[in-house]
Amino acid sequence: MTALTLITGGSRSGKSAFAQQMAERIHAPRLFLATCPHIDPEMDGRILRHQRDRQGKGWQTIEEPLRLADVLRCRPADEIVLVDCLTLWIGNLMHEAEQQGHEMSEDQIAAFAEELCRAACERRQRQGRVILVSNEVGLGIVPDNPASRRFRDLTGRCNQVVAAAADEVFLVCCGIPMQFK
Amino acid sequence: MTALTLITGGSRSGKSAFAQQMAERIHAPRLFLATCPHIDPEMDGRILRHQRDRQGKGWQTIEEPLRLADVLRCRPADEIVLVDCLTLWIGNLMHEAEQQGHEMSEDQIAAFAEELCRAACERRQRQGRVILVSNEVGLGIVPDNPASRRFRDLTGRCNQVVAAAADEVFLVCCGIPMQFK
Amino acid sequence: MTALTLITGGSRSGKSAFAQQMAERIHAPRLFLATCPHIDPEMDGRILRHQRDRQGKGWQTIEEPLRLADVLRCRPADEIVLVDCLTLWIGNLMHEAEQQGHEMSEDQIAAFAEELCRAACERRQRQGRVILVSNEVGLGIVPDNPASRRFRDLTGRCNQVVAAAADEVFLVCCGIPMQFK
Repeated sequence: MTALTLITGGSRSGKSAFAQQMAERIHAPRLFLATCPHIDPEMDGRILRHQRDRQGKGWQTIEEPLRLADVLRCRPADEIVLVDCLTLWIGNLMHEAEQQGHEMSEDQIAAFAEELCRAACERRQRQGRVILVSNEVGLGIVPDNPASRRFRDLTGRCNQVVAAAADEVFLVCCGIPMQFK
Repeated sequence: MTALTLITGGSRSGKSAFAQQMAERIHAPRLFLATCPHIDPEMDGRILRHQRDRQGKGWQTIEEPLRLADVLRCRPADEIVLVDCLTLWIGNLMHEAEQQGHEMSEDQIAAFAEELCRAACERRQRQGRVILVSNEVGLGIVPDNPASRRFRDLTGRCNQVVAAAADEVFLVCCGIPMQFK
Repeated sequence: MTALTLITGGSRSGKSAFAQQMAERIHAPRLFLATCPHIDPEMDGRILRHQRDRQGKGWQTIEEPLRLADVLRCRPADEIVLVDCLTLWIGNLMHEAEQQGHEMSEDQIAAFAEELCRAACERRQRQGRVILVSNEVGLGIVPDNPASRRFRDLTGRCNQVVAAAADEVFLVCCGIPMQFK
């Protein structure tokens, strides 16, 4: 049984829409777990657009920028949970670490990602299901600032950890999903 | 019958060469519809290189930065039209909107893309065929300037609209086409 | 018989790990041909991390930033050679050309890549095998500085040349290889 799905792709590739459609095809209560922080009007516009897309389709929404595994563990057993998205989560974790005066390492993000996957897979026994949306950010030119390079490394590492644990992985391009696991 | 093909990929991935070869395998008059504006020597170099590639292979060339659907509608019925490329077209449309004092929205670019696809698909009844070349620009780090983020969003949205209407979609990587629709 | 494999993908996609695992499944002496220059602590960190991954698995390591074909030609016949990676090699070649007062052209990088592939394929008769690791760098926004645009063009062109000569080509995404040739 499929417990954990990873959906990745570029910006505006149609990842979120595909993830929502996948969830809406399943007959179960639906939770949208939003990792997006309210930091500027541009972000708020994206949040509103995504909310509009979900309206009237039986979604409950929770905003949680950091403790995703904790949320997964306390949710009803039969719920389908869509986490959108892991890259914003990574950004939030990096920001939290920085506030505490240290830099997040690759090993740390890998540990967080493993914890998240464990929490997702525990739901398997209870017929629960988790869909994680991520981004591909490493197929452009090497960014010239160190923080962007770090973010790129952490995202790539996180995606590898999640893909290894996932039952299925999709890359969405031009709105079309390609399943490669 | 195939009326509309979308060919996408990264920069220097071999998209244009693959598109030209696809067109040249078909026994029909060939039109190259160039959207590239002559804005600087680097662009001119690219234009010249592409022109050299088409020389002696029966291509007619038209340059049209904006009104692609209009061109498609007035061309001979049996012609194969290669549009290279949609991302430059989007850049031109953004520039035109800016000159008129407003910003192009995602819904506007979607409307333009739908109009283009309608014009392409109308040719189907007349055995005409259209090949559109686009770019993937959303798989790197989020750009730090708003205009680039907007361009990325508009391009992603346009590619989704075109891919949904297309009969076939190819992603070219290292010169090798992968058909994913 | 497979003589030449190209493995490409984004940053932190798991390309190098997949390449190493592929080499380690083959019963032959193994050479790691590193193109990475020691230019800053960040690079040195990456070098150390990769070295740790290879430890105790029968790898010999040679560092050669420029003359890859020469190295391939003088190595034992039955060895498997892993070159990691072509994009750093291209950066090194660009830097060398600049030191000599000229810019590397696409035709020049194509000639270098062809020479490398010839040297790799000559090993075929002697049961030798070469795995080349490269990067996809052209799927983001057009970089605003000319040197990055040039690097992107040269890399794209080099990847096309190598993929055309290769017996097999893999795109690695989230640690998962997709074979597309």
